[in-house]
Amino acid sequence: MNERLLDRRRFLQYGASVITFGAAARALSAVTAEAVQSVDDPMRVPGALARSYGERSPFEHLMRSGAPDPFHSRTPLQDLHGIVTPSALHFERHHNGVPAIDPARHRLLVHGLVERPLIFSMEDLKRLPSISRIAFLECSGNTRDGWRETQDVTVQDLYGLMSTSEWTGVKLSTLLELVGARSEAKWMLAEGSDAAGLDRSVPLTDNVLNEGMICYGQNGEALRPEQGYPLRLFLPGLEGNINVKWLRRLKLGREPFMTRWETSKYTDLMPDGKAYQFTLVMEAKSVITYPSGQQYIQPGFHEISGLAWSGRGRVTKVEVSLDGGHTWHAAQLQEPVLSKCHARFHFPWRWNGQEAILQSRCVDETGYVQPTRQDLVKVRGINSVYHYNAIQSWRVERDGRIRNIHA
Amino acid sequence: MNERLLDRRRFLQYGASVITFGAAARALSAVTAEAVQSVDDPMRVPGALARSYGERSPFEHLMRSGAPDPFHSRTPLQDLHGIVTPSALHFERHHNGVPAIDPARHRLLVHGLVERPLIFSMEDLKRLPSISRIAFLECSGNTRDGWRETQDVTVQDLYGLMSTSEWTGVKLSTLLELVGARSEAKWMLAEGSDAAGLDRSVPLTDNVLNEGMICYGQNGEALRPEQGYPLRLFLPGLEGNINVKWLRRLKLGREPFMTRWETSKYTDLMPDGKAYQFTLVMEAKSVITYPSGQQYIQPGFHEISGLAWSGRGRVTKVEVSLDGGHTWHAAQLQEPVLSKCHARFHFPWRWNGQEAILQSRCVDETGYVQPTRQDLVKVRGINSVYHYNAIQSWRVERDGRIRNIHA
Repeated sequence: MNERLLDRRRFLQYGASVITFGAAARALSAVTAEAVQSVDDPMRVPGALARSYGERSPFEHLMRSGAPDPFHSRTPLQDLHGIVTPSALHFERHHNGVPAIDPARHRLLVHGLVERPLIFSMEDLKRLPSISRIAFLECSGNTRDGWRETQDVTVQDLYGLMSTSEWTGVKLSTLLELVGARSEAKWMLAEGSDAAGLDRSVPLTDNVLNEGMICYGQNGEALRPEQGYPLRLFLPGLEGNINVKWLRRLKLGREPFMTRWETSKYTDLMPDGKAYQFTLVMEAKSVITYPSGQQYIQPGFHEISGLAWSGRGRVTKVEVSLDGGHTWHAAQLQEPVLSKCHARFHFPWRWNGQEAILQSRCVDETGYVQPTRQDLVKVRGINSVYHYNAIQSWRVERDGRIRNIHA
Repeated sequence: MNERLLDRRRFLQYGASVITFGAAARALSAVTAEAVQSVDDPMRVPGALARSYGERSPFEHLMRSGAPDPFHSRTPLQDLHGIVTPSALHFERHHNGVPAIDPARHRLLVHGLVERPLIFSMEDLKRLPSISRIAFLECSGNTRDGWRETQDVTVQDLYGLMSTSEWTGVKLSTLLELVGARSEAKWMLAEGSDAAGLDRSVPLTDNVLNEGMICYGQNGEALRPEQGYPLRLFLPGLEGNINVKWLRRLKLGREPFMTRWETSKYTDLMPDGKAYQFTLVMEAKSVITYPSGQQYIQPGFHEISGLAWSGRGRVTKVEVSLDGGHTWHAAQLQEPVLSKCHARFHFPWRWNGQEAILQSRCVDETGYVQPTRQDLVKVRGINSVYHYNAIQSWRVERDGRIRNIHA
């Protein structure tokens, strides 16, 4: 009602350029606070009382999407802000469901090539020195459809197997010191207590020894069941699957243990038919989350926004292209930009109603530049399932519809 | 059962000092993975399927505490990790309940000393350039009981009116630019659409103009109702009450508007009977959250852990005292240490079973040192309700009981 009083015009100065700021604000010729109150008024009804554990507004309906199988679900990246993923919307991936574990009965055994095999209760682990770290976690199968012909999907469908949390726990190095890891131990078996019995061989590289964590905390409270409650391995920058959830056992050895999760799965099939094992690092990658697949936009001002990340350290630069990679423009990175963590980027854009192809390209602190799909396929072929990290292309069609394409 | 096989001894080297690591780990003479499996086994039962919106484990019961009135609740700091507060456990403070607001009908009016009064819908605001920031929010009445005789309380009771979130929204300066704020505008009325009609006068200082935000996001998703859904003012470093929730109106003017929330309340009563108004900055402060009030500890190794923060910028140093402030030791600050944000600190400690008085002291980037209670009372007297930021003392009694005291 009151908006009828308003014009639709406004200019927004953003950065160095003046951008027409379409319908986003309405100039008001004359208005009083009283006029605004004439909308149905929450000020006239006492509100709800304090609650011991909060819930989101009934007007909010963001969901993880789970099709086609019941053993994964994807984070709704197109509707999230900043870098922290709410724990309730953190992606899931499990191979025989989420176990229900009583933390009072849960134990972690550390054995193998050690001086003193030890069993830890959760209480034991929480007495140890702890660290916290905000970091991304990405399934190595995220964007697996990038290897195939494109489908008309959302960014949640394509990129939703990744999330960022503040993780808290004990350094892996603290545990290895307590058990007295032997110098000949170069690999570590990590075993989950889920019904899939998921286990993976972890190379004890400097990276793993310096940054590995045994986590019990996620975004301030206990891990959520879907993320490994009460205990998980967390190896910043490495593929999701090796961050073993519901962790019950670490065994140190000389060689990898060759579990089914690193032989029949989670390997990279190359064009010559050979498969690479233990390609664990998630390389630099980025994606525009707004505007993105299946959304519609109107001509005028839009702030392009997205996420960039690298398993090798900090993101140092994100560039945005509006013309399918012919020209690139520096995007603004939101501080803090943390190592092995999602970084939020922004880029102001005025859409003129013509077809456009939106891309983002990430550079990390090692100097690695996120590849085009063409360059990635040149090396890797199209037999792969995992570790697709090519530049993503969203086509803005003339009617404002955004479509996933290979460009 | 299996733990019966284990001894209880272990040394943990932490930092430069060797600390006896009491019962926290159990040395194991001989054990096999099979032996561990004999506990009731979640690996033998398929787990739960993927869920669209996650919930915490049924074994977890952390709660906000709300006594004595239904208009506030406190964050369980003694049990939280890292710096991010789960939105479900963010403290609440409201003066006539939490309004239920339909975001599609919510509007923000910006008027007063402006060139172009404007009304914004939520959709309008979300089209504008956005920023995210991880920052603390603290009620100025937090630790109000510090002014009085001590009671035997928990850290949640005493310090629980503070939390940290990743906040997302539009810069206040962006809105003020859109409406064309006049140069003679030095104050801004912010009005909430709750049944208390809470409104406050905000001084348009450089700090407010550079860092103020109009927020719609909290920890990645929409604000929770208790924190202002769908829209709130967020002024990093300033007292909670002025971060007006359920924001409906901003009015620019020459002078403060002298609302009841800044005249009859939220002022600092000094020893001479005069009251200071608009003492908005939350000065540097810290508290040990483990071990803390009403907890019991055993002799042996403990990692002292706590939070430090300053409304004036970054925390640069936290020191811990084990003897009531006679001697101080540098604590370790968990990176990242962000401006106007909780910082987590750690300090390794071996309790010898004797009485001890644990304290923490925060220094911020301005060089301000958190005062002792004695020094604070010397200046402020004991008539105050708000802005108590003295060093907190927890006495460890011989039986391991932790008690809140003035030291």
